[in-house]
Amino acid sequence: MKYADSGVNIDAATRALARSKEFVRSTWDHRVKSELGSFGGLFQAAPGEPLLVASVDGVGTKVMIARMVGRYDTVGQDLVNHCVDDILVQGAEPLFFLDYFATAKLEEDVLPQIIEGFAIGCRENGAALLGGETAEMPGVYGAGEFDLAGTIVGRVLEEDVIDGSKIAVGDKVWGLPSTGLHTNGYSLARAALFDKAGFGVDDAPSELNGATIGEALLAVHRSYLKPVRAMWDAFGRGAIHGLCHITGGGFTDNIPRVVPDGLCVGIDTRAWTPLPIFSLIGERGGVADAEMYRVFNMGIGMVVIAAPDADLTTIEAAGAILLGEVTTGEAKVHLAF
Amino acid sequence: MKYADSGVNIDAATRALARSKEFVRSTWDHRVKSELGSFGGLFQAAPGEPLLVASVDGVGTKVMIARMVGRYDTVGQDLVNHCVDDILVQGAEPLFFLDYFATAKLEEDVLPQIIEGFAIGCRENGAALLGGETAEMPGVYGAGEFDLAGTIVGRVLEEDVIDGSKIAVGDKVWGLPSTGLHTNGYSLARAALFDKAGFGVDDAPSELNGATIGEALLAVHRSYLKPVRAMWDAFGRGAIHGLCHITGGGFTDNIPRVVPDGLCVGIDTRAWTPLPIFSLIGERGGVADAEMYRVFNMGIGMVVIAAPDADLTTIEAAGAILLGEVTTGEAKVHLAF
Repeated sequence: MKYADSGVNIDAATRALARSKEFVRSTWDHRVKSELGSFGGLFQAAPGEPLLVASVDGVGTKVMIARMVGRYDTVGQDLVNHCVDDILVQGAEPLFFLDYFATAKLEEDVLPQIIEGFAIGCRENGAALLGGETAEMPGVYGAGEFDLAGTIVGRVLEEDVIDGSKIAVGDKVWGLPSTGLHTNGYSLARAALFDKAGFGVDDAPSELNGATIGEALLAVHRSYLKPVRAMWDAFGRGAIHGLCHITGGGFTDNIPRVVPDGLCVGIDTRAWTPLPIFSLIGERGGVADAEMYRVFNMGIGMVVIAAPDADLTTIEAAGAILLGEVTTGEAKVHLAF
Repeated sequence: MKYADSGVNIDAATRALARSKEFVRSTWDHRVKSELGSFGGLFQAAPGEPLLVASVDGVGTKVMIARMVGRYDTVGQDLVNHCVDDILVQGAEPLFFLDYFATAKLEEDVLPQIIEGFAIGCRENGAALLGGETAEMPGVYGAGEFDLAGTIVGRVLEEDVIDGSKIAVGDKVWGLPSTGLHTNGYSLARAALFDKAGFGVDDAPSELNGATIGEALLAVHRSYLKPVRAMWDAFGRGAIHGLCHITGGGFTDNIPRVVPDGLCVGIDTRAWTPLPIFSLIGERGGVADAEMYRVFNMGIGMVVIAAPDADLTTIEAAGAILLGEVTTGEAKVHLAF
């Protein structure tokens, strides 16, 4: 079973996005300081000013899990934390967030829960919920369905931007634990757990140690802002050479986004045990390991590439696990199983 | 026929949003300089800095018209221009824009057209298309359906913020023409034109002077950035006391958002002839005038409240029409028919 079988075709999206790239570039001038494909866009309104870093995202079909469980106050937190992590990897800390919520028919009891989730996420990350839009679109959305999108804006001093250029041979590669799927891979997870294995959200297979499928799938995306700030405080910003948010595309597609040509990030997957929800998806869904690591974070939501002498295990709040180190190599990432 | 009959219940949305307000406020600190309900959110990262102004929006069920017509390169322009106008009313000029595009199944020929629309809109307004997210969500969206959301970030110097506080008795009230529905009222328009009157998008009733229903409904939302800049250049920023973007809620709900207590913006609706598409919706749909002016812009997309001696008719690109003047009064807006 592969991701494409669950109705999502990453390759088609990639081709269509490639055709769109020139349109995007046509809007850029000297104020845009990032490349296409970076986690957040960097914008410097005037020379010498701090850079604004912005990113937009959704939570994918995690919204369908929320609806199945009937719990609406977590997906907003997921989205804020996801966006925070997307700009954090470039060294930015959040200023404010804006949300978009659209649904077939507005349910008065659902919307406040959704907004509460956004507010919790914003407060925890010190971001203002500066704006929002709520749309009722009968016909566009299936009955009872809804979608969320969120945009974050943060900033970073020019000299503090993390762009991967300091990554060097011998750097240590660390992983920070995730809480679950975070916000990607839900189409494959649903196909594996619901369609193939026949579970419902209230089932609690023994592999999940007492949690239900719904609880495991709704676990809130972790914000890595506080642990990364603690690392900056302990070792100096210069010691953190690269940060990679493991989102859609898993290890395989995300790590190359931050690694310079000629270097290879080695990851020994035996360094940690994937969270039970991933084993369940892999085993009951018959998904091969290579595909699992291409789609899911497998229990590591943020990869930190740090100077060799920075021992991240001293940052208790991070829970950092040593995964490998940086070598020379053609492939930018190598997973050992 | 009323807006609620077409499946959109503005009052339910208002009630649910009211319950959500406290959640939003709980994320705010001294850096947020706007009130709830303003067109854009104002954020000042540090004292003395220019204010960032941000807004998020969608184009409502205008996306369904695009799909019916099979033309996908205009809705992105609509969304950019809408967002530009939302922050312009507070005096801000755009820096960058981020888009969100989600659909049931990604069509390789549709996405590049959508992105091209965003790019055209961004270029015309001098904004960078700094980021975007594309999501394929089978099950959430109906077959062939899609949705867009966009977020704009601009900025304005502290002393240039337009907050309506300079509006005074005797100020002149001007209207800048719209191109059509812009981005709101499409659910009512579809109910009136398609369900009740039985039109299809390819029909060209004589009232539209040769245009089809589809063409009239897809007319691109006008950006008022250039005409308003021309006004600032000609009369000084201080002469423009208030700007009001006529969006969802029409004249009735939007004008009070920018008018201080005790003042009343008088608008003589006989000062202009509504665009033919509005007459068609009103007559064929049996929609009362009061409802029309509560839902639609009726041909005036931006209201400008200016110092009495600023003659906006000298700004040729604006096409300004004198609508009335500011008086004292309990109601913040008075429409004369």
